[in-house]
Amino acid sequence: MFSIEDTESIYKVIATRRDIRRFKTDPIPPDTVGRILEAAHLAPSVGFMQPWNFILIESAEVKKRLAWAADKERRALAIHYEENNRASEFLALKIEGLKEAPLTICVTCDPSRGGSHVLGRNSIPETDMMSTACAIQNMWLASCVEGLAMGWVSFYKKSDVRDILNIPPHIDPVALISIGYTDVYPKAPILETANWEKRQTLKNLIYKNIWGEKAYK
Amino acid sequence: MFSIEDTESIYKVIATRRDIRRFKTDPIPPDTVGRILEAAHLAPSVGFMQPWNFILIESAEVKKRLAWAADKERRALAIHYEENNRASEFLALKIEGLKEAPLTICVTCDPSRGGSHVLGRNSIPETDMMSTACAIQNMWLASCVEGLAMGWVSFYKKSDVRDILNIPPHIDPVALISIGYTDVYPKAPILETANWEKRQTLKNLIYKNIWGEKAYK
Repeated sequence: MFSIEDTESIYKVIATRRDIRRFKTDPIPPDTVGRILEAAHLAPSVGFMQPWNFILIESAEVKKRLAWAADKERRALAIHYEENNRASEFLALKIEGLKEAPLTICVTCDPSRGGSHVLGRNSIPETDMMSTACAIQNMWLASCVEGLAMGWVSFYKKSDVRDILNIPPHIDPVALISIGYTDVYPKAPILETANWEKRQTLKNLIYKNIWGEKAYK
Repeated sequence: MFSIEDTESIYKVIATRRDIRRFKTDPIPPDTVGRILEAAHLAPSVGFMQPWNFILIESAEVKKRLAWAADKERRALAIHYEENNRASEFLALKIEGLKEAPLTICVTCDPSRGGSHVLGRNSIPETDMMSTACAIQNMWLASCVEGLAMGWVSFYKKSDVRDILNIPPHIDPVALISIGYTDVYPKAPILETANWEKRQTLKNLIYKNIWGEKAYK
């Protein structure tokens, strides 16, 4: 079904994809946005519930208010990082991205979609959010292969984002995504390059048949 | 950075990937398993926390116990579906998969990894599980392009799976994944073919600048 070239392409995109914080303001062709959203919609979902919605935000005014909500949260978080200025710097970078990128997408999760007894969600309710994360990962890989940069902002009060975007109270705004072109697509995660966190050694994370029994010595 | 062929490959794999329930027992070459896990590990994670572990289960004895836990939950769930036999049939199919597939992978999420103040997780704690879901989606796409079928089981009591695999209480076993070769790789989701759920019309899920304002009429 797939060729060696297909296989190489997939692994190359998976390895290349990065969380980006700086964007050019050039607009994204509507067809490209359409393909990225189509990729998101093809993600797996528990009980085929497809719990996602996508709010495309191009209005400078709305973006400004989202950046305000994120900045408020950044300042609140900074108090927990008083001994580490770099943390505040990283968070600040993200907010610049929210203002710069030509397109912000608020991805939401509707836990009520599919009714009260979605197959498989009955036992582990958070699988609705995990399904939405799979859709975001598809968007990320599609953006990357389209030559677009994407960044995922996850610090804001959900109630602020609900107020700004008029999202009903039962809907979960799980991500603010910035998408745009960029001059700088780094080879390694920014937090790794900055020595904030190291990449874990994969073989240490893999066990065999039981927790704690290393599969690879 | 990427060619048109790369782009076509990505979209083809994203569109082809399905949740599979029937497997052949043929073993998977260890190098292939390695590549799939490497793809998982290259997923994005909030604050670069990489909260995942992978327990590779090939022991027939352990697989039997996991299938027992899932079957117990299936029987409990069946009571909620008394008026709909098909629901029980779908769930039963999944358990067969857990027994048939040569490899089951329990994917876990460690909310404590990265310490008490992981960047970005401070505001939305469930981003750790969403990061783990991104890793699972990478595994899924990698499996698909390698000609392997994958199925995600999400009905079991986490405490049962913790007991069987000796997983510490603070670690979250978020998914039981079956991987193997298959004779039948369907073109559409099983739940769609069986008229259980329809695929949503994407344009109805996309809003512009504010919730409820359709971006595409």
